[in-house]
Amino acid sequence: MPGFLCVDHVAVAVKPGELEQHVAAYKAMGFTEVHREDVLGKDQVREVLLRIGEGPNLMQLLEPLTAESPVAKQIEKAGGRGGFAHVAFRVADIQAAYDHLKANGFQILDAAPRKGSRGTTVFFVHPKTTAAAAFGYLIEVVQEG
Amino acid sequence: MPGFLCVDHVAVAVKPGELEQHVAAYKAMGFTEVHREDVLGKDQVREVLLRIGEGPNLMQLLEPLTAESPVAKQIEKAGGRGGFAHVAFRVADIQAAYDHLKANGFQILDAAPRKGSRGTTVFFVHPKTTAAAAFGYLIEVVQEG
Repeated sequence: MPGFLCVDHVAVAVKPGELEQHVAAYKAMGFTEVHREDVLGKDQVREVLLRIGEGPNLMQLLEPLTAESPVAKQIEKAGGRGGFAHVAFRVADIQAAYDHLKANGFQILDAAPRKGSRGTTVFFVHPKTTAAAAFGYLIEVVQEG
Repeated sequence: MPGFLCVDHVAVAVKPGELEQHVAAYKAMGFTEVHREDVLGKDQVREVLLRIGEGPNLMQLLEPLTAESPVAKQIEKAGGRGGFAHVAFRVADIQAAYDHLKANGFQILDAAPRKGSRGTTVFFVHPKTTAAAAFGYLIEVVQEG
């Protein structure tokens, strides 16, 4: 069994300069900021994680730091609007999940599980998903650190 | 406090005729089908809910039953592709959440909480969200039956 546990987070692209207003609006919903990190390298985003109640799920806000960020490109493609970026599922064992999805024909974007933010290990699945079923959205798979 | 508990479900639009292949692919990820319902009225969708592991979160697959379904319109607007439709957050008290968000300037699409599928009570928040922060995606708020 692949060991999927729950939604780890739902990721949302936020237009440059708007991050603090968005954080304030999630806080008005009662969500709590639990992590903030500038992720450099290929990502080039400022990430804020907000916890929903006392549950296991997080919202992940992604504000591009540079025009080269994939999030900046998503916003540009969407006509200047932010919005849904990906869903991340939490697993108990990232290598077991990787091997299981690979064996079941899922189109994985990473050659192996790799380092994510806040000490996690992650990989991504292409929106085309499998030959029989294109889910149409990007999936991240996450094991906590 | 508005009483948000967790992600209730992430909803995904599925192209007509492809629902069973998608259900099979989620089952290959270890997700379990827990509910299936044809939702008529304004919605006109076949809904399948799949549980992620033993956790509280669900994936909701929505296949349009007619061309008038809002999900059919979403797929048409997306150039014939399915994909992310909305995120639903679970609350303890739907009326308290409604009143709290209304008082905080959230753009609610329903005049009052209303009946959802599988015995839930729900309302939706417009993707423009608040005057200060347009989240850019549709939010559903759900109280279990």
